[in-house]
Amino acid sequence: MTDLERRSSDAEHRRREILDAAATIFARKGYAATSIQDIAEAVEILKGSLYYYIDSKEDLLFEVIQEVHRDGLARLEAMRASQAPALERLAAFVRSHVEYNARNLTKISVFFHDFRSLSPERRQLIVEERDIYDHHLRGLIEQGQKEGTICPGTDPKMAAFAILGMMNWMYQWYRPDGDKSPEAIAEIFAEMAVRSVACPGRKHPGHAG
Amino acid sequence: MTDLERRSSDAEHRRREILDAAATIFARKGYAATSIQDIAEAVEILKGSLYYYIDSKEDLLFEVIQEVHRDGLARLEAMRASQAPALERLAAFVRSHVEYNARNLTKISVFFHDFRSLSPERRQLIVEERDIYDHHLRGLIEQGQKEGTICPGTDPKMAAFAILGMMNWMYQWYRPDGDKSPEAIAEIFAEMAVRSVACPGRKHPGHAG
Repeated sequence: MTDLERRSSDAEHRRREILDAAATIFARKGYAATSIQDIAEAVEILKGSLYYYIDSKEDLLFEVIQEVHRDGLARLEAMRASQAPALERLAAFVRSHVEYNARNLTKISVFFHDFRSLSPERRQLIVEERDIYDHHLRGLIEQGQKEGTICPGTDPKMAAFAILGMMNWMYQWYRPDGDKSPEAIAEIFAEMAVRSVACPGRKHPGHAG
Repeated sequence: MTDLERRSSDAEHRRREILDAAATIFARKGYAATSIQDIAEAVEILKGSLYYYIDSKEDLLFEVIQEVHRDGLARLEAMRASQAPALERLAAFVRSHVEYNARNLTKISVFFHDFRSLSPERRQLIVEERDIYDHHLRGLIEQGQKEGTICPGTDPKMAAFAILGMMNWMYQWYRPDGDKSPEAIAEIFAEMAVRSVACPGRKHPGHAG
């Protein structure tokens, strides 16, 4: 490793530390009530030096929120290739989302609480990324309708909102020291989500068509 | 009406106005970013005069949040008397909650965003009221298990969280000018909630036992 590479990797590491500290303090106090000073103290550097790594408090918020969405899109990418029937894909989607939420409680809390504190331009960028995610879920419901496992009368948009709500609400009640593991909750929610849209009497037909 | 009664009713009216204005501004800007000055301007009175009606900004937050909970408990009281089977009671519970959320978007947004800005003592009071509400929902699921319409393996606590999430998440996406009425959304969500917990093959048996 050259000296330059080492310095760049140190800076990378420092940035990561600052980002994690910012997420933790935003989640606890809220974005508006957090000062740059709070973050500088948490990572034990001078406020002035913090500006070597970031331009503004809003930059930190944007990065935390962007990370949540990039992670979401990466998980989506991994699931897109599946050829499984819609209800199986729906169950896998819910499992993945619930486990992610359970393991990234701080970041998702910041997202849900402080999204509106972003500038309109940045909010727009995030909304576009989120739409891709939401539309994937709607698409799974439409796929299930084509396969005949989800009733034709189901409104894909409303059903997707209901399922997203079921999962995202976790940031209000989930505690890492609770009596259920992320996997156990993921399994329960996947089953409930599938049941909530599955057409009665036509459940789990195994294959499409 | 005596002069005293009239003055007291005027004050009541003024308080209501202040409370509604506070809820609207909190919902838009967030509690931390809202000043007493913002609220005074919205109701067109002097900041100093505002203190005739309230003691602090936190008092306003507490009142808005308390209203949401009192309304919830009042709706609960009205539903408690029902002798219907659990799945019917669950559907009625969801309908009532969803319609309320749709019609009180500002207040519920303040609650979900700014609950943590309350003092620990006040937070505790609200948590106790909320627990009554959450336990009622769990109780309906347990009733369904006794009646055999909800599978014995269902975890009442997790199922209640999932259903509350489905409904409460509305504050993130519901818009009064959207293409679905509160009643239509309430109906869709009631059906999804019932399906999500109903034991397959044993749905809607009509009566208990």
